[in-house]
Amino acid sequence: MPRYAFRVEYDGAPFAGWQAQAGVPSVQGAIEAALGKLDPGFADGARIAAAGRTDAGVHASGQVFHADLIKEWQRFKLGEALNWHLKPDPVSVTAVVPVSNDFHARFSALERRYAFRLVARRAPVVADRGRVWQVLKPLDIDGMREAAQYLVGRHDFTTFRSTMCQSASPVKTLDEIRIEGLDYPAGQEVRFHLRARSFLHNQVRSIVGTLERVGAGAWEPGRVKAALEAADRAACGPVCPPQGLSLTGVGYDPDPFS
Amino acid sequence: MPRYAFRVEYDGAPFAGWQAQAGVPSVQGAIEAALGKLDPGFADGARIAAAGRTDAGVHASGQVFHADLIKEWQRFKLGEALNWHLKPDPVSVTAVVPVSNDFHARFSALERRYAFRLVARRAPVVADRGRVWQVLKPLDIDGMREAAQYLVGRHDFTTFRSTMCQSASPVKTLDEIRIEGLDYPAGQEVRFHLRARSFLHNQVRSIVGTLERVGAGAWEPGRVKAALEAADRAACGPVCPPQGLSLTGVGYDPDPFS
Repeated sequence: MPRYAFRVEYDGAPFAGWQAQAGVPSVQGAIEAALGKLDPGFADGARIAAAGRTDAGVHASGQVFHADLIKEWQRFKLGEALNWHLKPDPVSVTAVVPVSNDFHARFSALERRYAFRLVARRAPVVADRGRVWQVLKPLDIDGMREAAQYLVGRHDFTTFRSTMCQSASPVKTLDEIRIEGLDYPAGQEVRFHLRARSFLHNQVRSIVGTLERVGAGAWEPGRVKAALEAADRAACGPVCPPQGLSLTGVGYDPDPFS
Repeated sequence: MPRYAFRVEYDGAPFAGWQAQAGVPSVQGAIEAALGKLDPGFADGARIAAAGRTDAGVHASGQVFHADLIKEWQRFKLGEALNWHLKPDPVSVTAVVPVSNDFHARFSALERRYAFRLVARRAPVVADRGRVWQVLKPLDIDGMREAAQYLVGRHDFTTFRSTMCQSASPVKTLDEIRIEGLDYPAGQEVRFHLRARSFLHNQVRSIVGTLERVGAGAWEPGRVKAALEAADRAACGPVCPPQGLSLTGVGYDPDPFS
């Protein structure tokens, strides 16, 4: 069967996450239902596989999934047809490409990139409601950058993963945490950019929630190092809420979309 | 009575515009209702005045209004109290300052600044839904910039104002149209920045809708010059939809917020 890779953007707000679950709306379920309108295999229950199983409320601008279809499609027509059937769900296919059958959206992925948007200001955020985590006081960017450096590299991330995490090992290599400070009307925006081959469950939100404690002055940067070395979930700072988080990209070699 | 100036951010989507009208939700109505919870004058029907009466669906990040209150307030407390009573409406006061009684949010304003966000791509826009105008094909930025220059300066803008416009004169001075081309996932973003002492009704949306025709290649840039010189509403291009538009700032001298 011909296999296709898709890049997809979605607003996570109305979904209980990427993964299809009975009785609740999911991004995967919305896409599989739309595929069922144009492919008999999906009408019969075929499934798609994605690079990252984002949590409830988490957005994506660069999620990737693949699907095996019964017939061959012209790329442009397949994207148009799928977007047509996805309406009115806030899910949009932004690229479609035929791939060989040894391409797997999840297992072939060499890198995941996430961005987290935080806004620090007193007045309620309106323009970016549902897209940022709001805190009330300005944050110390330099302190957060210092703390973040302790987390970069290969470590046991037990402290920074959910107790529900199903990954076989807590050891992961975090390639980058870049922290941008930006102007924001009547406040400050902080963008966290994280990059790794793969992430543990809740790892990004555990890290950002902990770094926010440093930015707020409640934690010394060195406490993040100690928390990591403790390899104890109880040493983590608060897990931050999901709506600031977005899966922005997935790396493959070769990149089927390039 | 002590007078206060407020800077305010709002999402225009749920409102029939800035201006209070019986039976429909308005930004002005939401703010006056909130002021009515903390000031007896507003409980009795006092009104506020704003720098720009934005249309239905138009957003603001830097609208300014003033209000005369019965008692004196500490700035921080007044902003907090007003934002408390504005919940859950998507309206947020981002600055409060006491002003003298000769300050008038509308009549003292020397400059209004608007930004319009347009996204050109095939795939439906999800992440910025409700905040951008989407067109399907890439636009020629240079062509739009050339056409825009014909509109800068002092002109009779009859072509570019609504037939419902109540302004005494169609002659206005447009100080600037700056057009930014930005990267956008799977597409192109174009931001239009317009600046003038004051604008006619629907002037920004008439200009952006007309410039889009140039960007799409349907109009030569010179046709915009001819349309302006015609001083005839029928010569205007299509008026673009409101959701890409935001009132980003108002200029005063001295600036009470600086």
